[in-house]
Amino acid sequence: MSGRPKIRLFVDHALAPGERVGLSRDQAHYLTGVMRLGEGAEIAVFDGRSGEFRAVLAEASKRGGTLEVQEQTAPFRAPPDLWLLFAPIKKARTDFIVEKATELGAARICPVQTEFTNAERIRRDRLQAHAIEAAEQCGGTYVPEVDELVPLSEMLGNWPEGRRLLFADEGLSGAAAALSELPASDQWAILIGPEGGFSPAERERLASLPFVSAISLGPRILRADTAAVAALTLFQASHGDWA
Amino acid sequence: MSGRPKIRLFVDHALAPGERVGLSRDQAHYLTGVMRLGEGAEIAVFDGRSGEFRAVLAEASKRGGTLEVQEQTAPFRAPPDLWLLFAPIKKARTDFIVEKATELGAARICPVQTEFTNAERIRRDRLQAHAIEAAEQCGGTYVPEVDELVPLSEMLGNWPEGRRLLFADEGLSGAAAALSELPASDQWAILIGPEGGFSPAERERLASLPFVSAISLGPRILRADTAAVAALTLFQASHGDWA
Repeated sequence: MSGRPKIRLFVDHALAPGERVGLSRDQAHYLTGVMRLGEGAEIAVFDGRSGEFRAVLAEASKRGGTLEVQEQTAPFRAPPDLWLLFAPIKKARTDFIVEKATELGAARICPVQTEFTNAERIRRDRLQAHAIEAAEQCGGTYVPEVDELVPLSEMLGNWPEGRRLLFADEGLSGAAAALSELPASDQWAILIGPEGGFSPAERERLASLPFVSAISLGPRILRADTAAVAALTLFQASHGDWA
Repeated sequence: MSGRPKIRLFVDHALAPGERVGLSRDQAHYLTGVMRLGEGAEIAVFDGRSGEFRAVLAEASKRGGTLEVQEQTAPFRAPPDLWLLFAPIKKARTDFIVEKATELGAARICPVQTEFTNAERIRRDRLQAHAIEAAEQCGGTYVPEVDELVPLSEMLGNWPEGRRLLFADEGLSGAAAALSELPASDQWAILIGPEGGFSPAERERLASLPFVSAISLGPRILRADTAAVAALTLFQASHGDWA
């Protein structure tokens, strides 16, 4: 679904016309080795906070290089203030959830450890790199921060005031109705359970918390990665920036 | 998101209490070798048309075996009459689309060749096996048929009367509004383009066809697999069996 091929690069450097940005070894290799660009080539760059800019490859070698930032080509656009909380699953499906959350416009990605979560740890840096790559691909100007893994119970205990949590529960029906009837808020989070579901204690606690609403994702059992994409989609279409 | 572990097996054999069903070599290996079941073990079986039944492993060896079908445990439930048309992409993402379409309740999966589709052929049997596995996982009693690859132009030329086609176009806005304003129909299809998008000629033809409606999937560019999941979700929540 992407348009014409266009090289987009995230750089961790505040962008403005006239700035010169040094390339890391990996970035230089990607531009010159993989994409076969030479000096003078144009790409698009974004920094996750200032929008998208045109940039010219001013110097390039296999080990580094310099971009010269030209005019701004797209405004910065933040997604809705929506967090995705999910229990890490198998590697490929966890990567997938991070990629899809970025494409679908989550503002922050929060891996949480539930009672039935298999993963004891995550490679935060690798997941963050996936989020960056997804933002480069999807034409976004924002990269969601990927947090370290924290226990769900701890996160619920320190829950920020005013933020509402949508809990994608199994076996409920009436997703659309529930979503349209949610309390008003500008701060949201979606919680997706692990493949093994939530424990009875977790389920009970979630049901008792005043900031939590359960939403349905239909009559079939969804895998965790499908549930994440479906819940993000329903949120964006009803409360987010697709409406 | 799956509940308690439960072995579910699709069998291509009309089921009814008292029936005896022979196991293929692969099925016998899965039950006895992978899942370590012995004679007398119980599993759930479904045939894609009669619902779910309890079955007992009556005989089992590495090479084959027999199931004895017991009582029905769930009714047959067909998804809405919704086809998913998509242009095959890289192998892993094509597999993913088939898996997700099954979980999300597509009735038929139609790989189509567009002008910018890279794939010249598909492994239909492999994709069908993915659909079966996804149905086994998601607790469904229906397995969507995966068609052979056909040119999109041919499919549009032979389009069945009365079926409406939702075309997930880039750069539109107002997805939810558009979905709620669609003409009434019981027969639907969703069309997802390849990573390179549709050609101008395809886009023009789609816009001119009376059975086609364009829907939006938000302001970011979605990969084809994300677009498929998002479009199926929006359809199910607004017109399908999640409402």
